[in-house]
Amino acid sequence: MKSIDPSHLRGMTAAEVRRLIRSGELDAPTAGMADGFVQANLAIIPREFAGDFLEFCKANPKPCPLLGVSEPGAVTVPGVADDLDIRSDVCGYKIFKNGVAVERVTDLAKVWRDDLVTFVLGCSFSFEHALRDAGLPVRHIDCGCNVPMYKTTLATAPRGRFAGPLVVSMRPFTPADAIRAICLSDKMPLAHGAPVHFGDPASIGIRDISRPEYGDAVPIGAGEVPVFWACGVTPQAVLEKAALPFAIAHDPGHMLITDIRNAAITDGVAEVEFCVS
Amino acid sequence: MKSIDPSHLRGMTAAEVRRLIRSGELDAPTAGMADGFVQANLAIIPREFAGDFLEFCKANPKPCPLLGVSEPGAVTVPGVADDLDIRSDVCGYKIFKNGVAVERVTDLAKVWRDDLVTFVLGCSFSFEHALRDAGLPVRHIDCGCNVPMYKTTLATAPRGRFAGPLVVSMRPFTPADAIRAICLSDKMPLAHGAPVHFGDPASIGIRDISRPEYGDAVPIGAGEVPVFWACGVTPQAVLEKAALPFAIAHDPGHMLITDIRNAAITDGVAEVEFCVS
Repeated sequence: MKSIDPSHLRGMTAAEVRRLIRSGELDAPTAGMADGFVQANLAIIPREFAGDFLEFCKANPKPCPLLGVSEPGAVTVPGVADDLDIRSDVCGYKIFKNGVAVERVTDLAKVWRDDLVTFVLGCSFSFEHALRDAGLPVRHIDCGCNVPMYKTTLATAPRGRFAGPLVVSMRPFTPADAIRAICLSDKMPLAHGAPVHFGDPASIGIRDISRPEYGDAVPIGAGEVPVFWACGVTPQAVLEKAALPFAIAHDPGHMLITDIRNAAITDGVAEVEFCVS
Repeated sequence: MKSIDPSHLRGMTAAEVRRLIRSGELDAPTAGMADGFVQANLAIIPREFAGDFLEFCKANPKPCPLLGVSEPGAVTVPGVADDLDIRSDVCGYKIFKNGVAVERVTDLAKVWRDDLVTFVLGCSFSFEHALRDAGLPVRHIDCGCNVPMYKTTLATAPRGRFAGPLVVSMRPFTPADAIRAICLSDKMPLAHGAPVHFGDPASIGIRDISRPEYGDAVPIGAGEVPVFWACGVTPQAVLEKAALPFAIAHDPGHMLITDIRNAAITDGVAEVEFCVS
């Protein structure tokens, strides 16, 4: 694999980056690629469980904001991207058997089945982009690390076999900046929307803010408060807990880059009604 | 003055309540009257100073959200209310001379001048209405007292002789409710918009949260944080400090009830361009 200049990747369209990934020329965390395009979490599960999972997403729109759902077996997802082959257009996939990640693959051709339904869920990259555009500092980006994520004692609304605790991501801000961050992210319900909590970590069951369950710890400055958003890791944790015989997710950080513009999911986004065939 | 049933006043239109006030049949704090209509702060100043005050309001839209400005000497304010006589349609007015409140009157007929310009500024009643509609508790309303207000060390943007500290109002919430209150009030920029601060009072210069400069102290529960909004008392404090030879304001709590619907200033309100003749 040849090395590609990150600034070159930033200026590409989503379709251009997907083609590089599809051809095997690119396998890297996708943050910052195809600037302005929505990146997304991926959950691919057998049709047998898809109805319940759809209901779970609808009941928990903050951790699981639905950008699109495929027909069973289809490798495209309406409204998410043209020229999409979901089997090859993400850098890395995790294969789960009975809730356990057993393998990372870069292509789903060998494991694809006609009953697989693809769920495309919004991710925090979109609102982080909006925060930085507004001049707000995003700590983990400034630190060059992953966002810290924590399991909480807040419960998701269970549907069928899908249930479990809400996982949150944390970004510290001064109160004035936190208010701006809250208002900006509220305008992007398809990128997790407004936060679920700020301030005292213990009141949502986080024992040690310096030891996140996922990602990396970041410093919290004097006069800053931690602000907690519902996180796209929630559906992965829920899928693991549900222990489906077979499921696929993206390798964290290696997102599906969609053709949807960040601007298109900002403010008064049209309601889309999803169903499973 | 005969006593009027508060529930009757709540169900009236703005025009009906204004007619009662104009006829001298009603002089009471207007909170809860003409439910669903925007209530407003009032500042009436000589034309000589109106241009600077308009610039001050534009530069400080959070404490001074402009709903309307009159022509000099006019007793109506375009876009604010039909059938309006600004000299008689507010229960109580405060007359200021050289920045000092010298008198409360219920009618401006005797003091009216052809050079007076009326500024109508949004007030927090509108967003409090939205918070309560959403099921959020508003402490001072539940306590049956006035909202606590504090002078801060945050400065307004000065224009001409108009300058001074931002005054804020405070409502305590749990963090989850605070996030909802922030998002809801952000949708009403003409009712002070999103808060300016939450949490530590000292960081905006409030020494003792239990001793507000204006209004009444309210209890803050365990697990609650104080949330601070820019307050319509700011322009009154600024007007006093500017020490104009002559100025008029409403008697606090006795607001101008406009024909504007709360819904009309929620979310994507059309930008209105104001000027002073």
